[in-house]
Amino acid sequence: MNSFGKIFRISIFGESHGDCVGVVIDGCPSGVLLSLYDFIEDLERRRSGRKGTTQRIEEDLPIIKSGVFNDRTTGAPIMIAFNNLNAEPKDYKDIKHKPRPGHVDFAAWKKYGGFNDYRGSGHFSGRLTLGIVAAGVIAKKIIEPVKVKAGLVEIGGSKDIDSAVEHALEIGDSIGGIVECRLYNLPVGLGEPFFDSFESVLSHGVFSIPGIKAIEFGCGFMCAGMKGSEYNDEILDYTGKTKSNNAGGINGGITNGNEIYFRVAVRPTSSIPKPQKTIDLKTNEPTEISIKGRHDVAIALRIPVIVEAISAIVTADFMLLEQRIKRIWG
Amino acid sequence: MNSFGKIFRISIFGESHGDCVGVVIDGCPSGVLLSLYDFIEDLERRRSGRKGTTQRIEEDLPIIKSGVFNDRTTGAPIMIAFNNLNAEPKDYKDIKHKPRPGHVDFAAWKKYGGFNDYRGSGHFSGRLTLGIVAAGVIAKKIIEPVKVKAGLVEIGGSKDIDSAVEHALEIGDSIGGIVECRLYNLPVGLGEPFFDSFESVLSHGVFSIPGIKAIEFGCGFMCAGMKGSEYNDEILDYTGKTKSNNAGGINGGITNGNEIYFRVAVRPTSSIPKPQKTIDLKTNEPTEISIKGRHDVAIALRIPVIVEAISAIVTADFMLLEQRIKRIWG
Amino acid sequence: MNSFGKIFRISIFGESHGDCVGVVIDGCPSGVLLSLYDFIEDLERRRSGRKGTTQRIEEDLPIIKSGVFNDRTTGAPIMIAFNNLNAEPKDYKDIKHKPRPGHVDFAAWKKYGGFNDYRGSGHFSGRLTLGIVAAGVIAKKIIEPVKVKAGLVEIGGSKDIDSAVEHALEIGDSIGGIVECRLYNLPVGLGEPFFDSFESVLSHGVFSIPGIKAIEFGCGFMCAGMKGSEYNDEILDYTGKTKSNNAGGINGGITNGNEIYFRVAVRPTSSIPKPQKTIDLKTNEPTEISIKGRHDVAIALRIPVIVEAISAIVTADFMLLEQRIKRIWG
Amino acid sequence: MNSFGKIFRISIFGESHGDCVGVVIDGCPSGVLLSLYDFIEDLERRRSGRKGTTQRIEEDLPIIKSGVFNDRTTGAPIMIAFNNLNAEPKDYKDIKHKPRPGHVDFAAWKKYGGFNDYRGSGHFSGRLTLGIVAAGVIAKKIIEPVKVKAGLVEIGGSKDIDSAVEHALEIGDSIGGIVECRLYNLPVGLGEPFFDSFESVLSHGVFSIPGIKAIEFGCGFMCAGMKGSEYNDEILDYTGKTKSNNAGGINGGITNGNEIYFRVAVRPTSSIPKPQKTIDLKTNEPTEISIKGRHDVAIALRIPVIVEAISAIVTADFMLLEQRIKRIWG
Repeated sequence: MNSFGKIFRISIFGESHGDCVGVVIDGCPSGVLLSLYDFIEDLERRRSGRKGTTQRIEEDLPIIKSGVFNDRTTGAPIMIAFNNLNAEPKDYKDIKHKPRPGHVDFAAWKKYGGFNDYRGSGHFSGRLTLGIVAAGVIAKKIIEPVKVKAGLVEIGGSKDIDSAVEHALEIGDSIGGIVECRLYNLPVGLGEPFFDSFESVLSHGVFSIPGIKAIEFGCGFMCAGMKGSEYNDEILDYTGKTKSNNAGGINGGITNGNEIYFRVAVRPTSSIPKPQKTIDLKTNEPTEISIKGRHDVAIALRIPVIVEAISAIVTADFMLLEQRIKRIWG
Repeated sequence: MNSFGKIFRISIFGESHGDCVGVVIDGCPSGVLLSLYDFIEDLERRRSGRKGTTQRIEEDLPIIKSGVFNDRTTGAPIMIAFNNLNAEPKDYKDIKHKPRPGHVDFAAWKKYGGFNDYRGSGHFSGRLTLGIVAAGVIAKKIIEPVKVKAGLVEIGGSKDIDSAVEHALEIGDSIGGIVECRLYNLPVGLGEPFFDSFESVLSHGVFSIPGIKAIEFGCGFMCAGMKGSEYNDEILDYTGKTKSNNAGGINGGITNGNEIYFRVAVRPTSSIPKPQKTIDLKTNEPTEISIKGRHDVAIALRIPVIVEAISAIVTADFMLLEQRIKRIWG
Repeated sequence: MNSFGKIFRISIFGESHGDCVGVVIDGCPSGVLLSLYDFIEDLERRRSGRKGTTQRIEEDLPIIKSGVFNDRTTGAPIMIAFNNLNAEPKDYKDIKHKPRPGHVDFAAWKKYGGFNDYRGSGHFSGRLTLGIVAAGVIAKKIIEPVKVKAGLVEIGGSKDIDSAVEHALEIGDSIGGIVECRLYNLPVGLGEPFFDSFESVLSHGVFSIPGIKAIEFGCGFMCAGMKGSEYNDEILDYTGKTKSNNAGGINGGITNGNEIYFRVAVRPTSSIPKPQKTIDLKTNEPTEISIKGRHDVAIALRIPVIVEAISAIVTADFMLLEQRIKRIWG
Repeated sequence: MNSFGKIFRISIFGESHGDCVGVVIDGCPSGVLLSLYDFIEDLERRRSGRKGTTQRIEEDLPIIKSGVFNDRTTGAPIMIAFNNLNAEPKDYKDIKHKPRPGHVDFAAWKKYGGFNDYRGSGHFSGRLTLGIVAAGVIAKKIIEPVKVKAGLVEIGGSKDIDSAVEHALEIGDSIGGIVECRLYNLPVGLGEPFFDSFESVLSHGVFSIPGIKAIEFGCGFMCAGMKGSEYNDEILDYTGKTKSNNAGGINGGITNGNEIYFRVAVRPTSSIPKPQKTIDLKTNEPTEISIKGRHDVAIALRIPVIVEAISAIVTADFMLLEQRIKRIWG
């Protein structure tokens, strides 16, 4: 399903080269101040146009179609649309029957019997994350004083991000990266035992972001090589504050009052100009494909704000369940 | 919620030192042959009693209370209970107000206002995974010919598992490990775009297993340092078979017909005999705790079969949605 | 939540006097032929403009924003919007603080702390049923050969519908009515025991239609006065066909292969020109209100096609679960 | 699915002549005082043994298996089982292939391909309502000061309940009845627009009770013959209190602060001693069946407490969503 969340629940729709993309946000409290200005910063962070991102420039102007009245949320579903103004569907005509390596093309073609909109990955496009970022903006407002902050910590295996992007552009290839996210001021007790542990629901959301292939909470994979006496976080006082924070702020799936932090791995952009081998679905013969279109060199550059959005959405949902966010504001 | 799944849906209940633990499995097709013998192998793999696992030995005999008639599933909910025969709740009396570092004790105490059953972590106990393993046995039957196979690939930072466990026992400490899981013979097209991507739902399930702090699909964190030309998996033929499998069998959240593989990091067991610093919740004063009870040196030893169970449950749910499993068997 | 359904799942959004209303339909099979022409008949049946319906005339043109490509569904969410062209929000300024008797005004004001869009009931408006009717059009296509047919059987206590409407217009009052719906060619076995019985899910959907206050399946309330020997439907042959059909095609919550039929009661339109007593929410003093605006004399006139839509949506969802509708068409 | 509810969520399992029936209750606040004594009154009201109810007498002793510690709920899932002590599965051997008119036998046989437990309707048995009543007991505690009260208002078409039952016993037939339920002290604002209107969710729950074929809220079917000027409930003061209560306490799907009341129709018990015509599923030939077993003359006698339970469960779920019930008690 294209929906996520239990109380604060979002549904996304749209295609890369269709009319628009957008999101419906259900379960938002009423009375929350909300105007277009609130969206600018995060949408700008997600936006392309910087070095290393696609040359497809879109206005990415959020149009609030419902759920807001006199600059406040009404409690009814909030629909936000983003029109596609700069679509160039012709770019994709040639590749209709030539699934691009690393892309969902082949899997989607089989899943939907060839009826999927293949232009720019159609519904699988990264453009769909616009709606996620917009929902994240609202979530960030209601989870106050909880703060979420994500950033790129490594790209193409390097900490020097500018030169790594530069290099990738020069050699006509794409690169991956690592994004780290931190949540501050969380209350103790968010998350449910087992199936709705904080890690479960957060990773569920995070893996819905195109291109993410790994996640680790706290010291993550490193913990596998540690001893219990090294790993266990000593409890310092009655607020639950710990000396170290190897657990990344979560024990038994429940927030323990310390900072949450996690890292995700972003694979390199699949679309590269270099010729790649694939199969022609019409003839079942091997063929080559060279991807034109307009693409990011490193989608990792645009991921941090999306990871923040998902984190805020998950936190909002858990806080509503725990009655840490009131239903009526203002 | 203590439930997981959309069509093939499981709910778990019980406490470590209560009467029993168990699972209700809803949405299983009717007519599936099922007897107690089917459960033996997987429950035995999960069981304690080997070197490095807890000295609490339970029979772990599954009692099928509903949903099976004349050795076949009826289509009604299957309830399976496991009685707790060897509970020793007195072991935990002293620690009621002394939250164990690395455990959920503190977070649960805050979340439930001190009303949680603290004995052996109560509902947060690893014993609850008995129900997950039992549900996994049924899931494995219905996803045929899909096969799931997980194993321990590293423990305490070493590939030599026996001697790593031996060493940890000697020094009175606990160790973590890495479990790898593979799924074979998957159809193309399982998973939904975005929020119910195969990775999303699988990681949701996997992070419900106590002690798991990280997951990576395919080449995982390594992909962050790769170039697109290295990472992209060349498509070889019309079945979707690829030359390499860096994506781990999933593109855009959808299975692509190749083997799925992923690795998870298991933190060291939190309970260790060494004295650790914590806080006394009655006095708000610092104190020390030395954990007696009966505990695993490395819970990672028992995790593979649980990871298999979750993988099979997720696959069953997606296959039912895609109509790849029939509703009536026999 | 403003969502309904498990596999074939719809979400609605919008306000009476906002920018638009619409629906997102998730889980629709791919390859289903779909064009604007498919919507004309049902939207026309729902539409106002006939005697006894509101003078607010809207084009009610469905705009398919996503999920359809080359006239076929793609498998991605289908978003359909209806612009509000003839909104007159000023009509409602006076009543902001004077909740109309029979309307949701007072309850919504309390629920949302006064932040709800009160203009024409805002999100509670009957205009939201446009999205339901649109989703119903798609559902009707995919449940073939199942047919759904609803009609008005009584209005204002009379079978002579034209003269009952005429009379109500004359006296400046509104009237209620009874709608009957029948489903033909249903397979045996739709519905789940207990909580997702066919009656449970259908009534859930039907009571989401504004103005419906009662539902009865088969002989309904009459069965309370019958004897078992009269009520029980004799089974005639191995298709499950019964001699009588007092159960209305459902036993134990499961379709039994006979026609389903049910009746719903529609209350009179709440908005009437006659002065009515209410309370002024600003002063807490009693006051009078006389509703101007543009309103239906009998909303029952427009209900049949909405009841059909809900019935088709529920049937589609159950048929997908039972694998009676394929996932790929064409 | 055999689950119901969003936050306060119940799952039921078991069969009439299997080992036990029971319920898992998830999402209950922690710290709620709960002992076996709490269940006595409601289980006794549901119980058989009175004139007109089945001769199958069961102890109906609730066994709390999890989620309660030191007489208080812990916040973990509460599992309550009821053992079947007086099962006589042999009673049903003859009817395995002869579906009883008015029963689910035929529909279940088709739905589950003949693998369903047919003994005493198996999972479709009224015994499953034990778990619903038990969950209702807990729900009633947490919705305080909201009160729920249901009673039988008519049986076999008569208000004289004793003599109607007497007469039905004499003539060896069964009779239906009408149950009315009222909810007092409800807060304004429970229920969601459209799909989760209070009526939607309540009717969803109520139609999961075996034997119910109709429901009407407020003046129900009568409203279809009323004029708006008669039907609309005049608002008297700022608490939302109305002069009349034709809407039954709900406008636009939202509670308006007045008493909720609704009526349901209960069909006559399907099992009657009189010979009835049916089909032999082995031979596809017509045959006759005379139902032995032990059955109620009027299940309506046992329905009121079950309707109360569903009403309390629905109210608890909505109140938790609206943060009208705290998550930690004590």
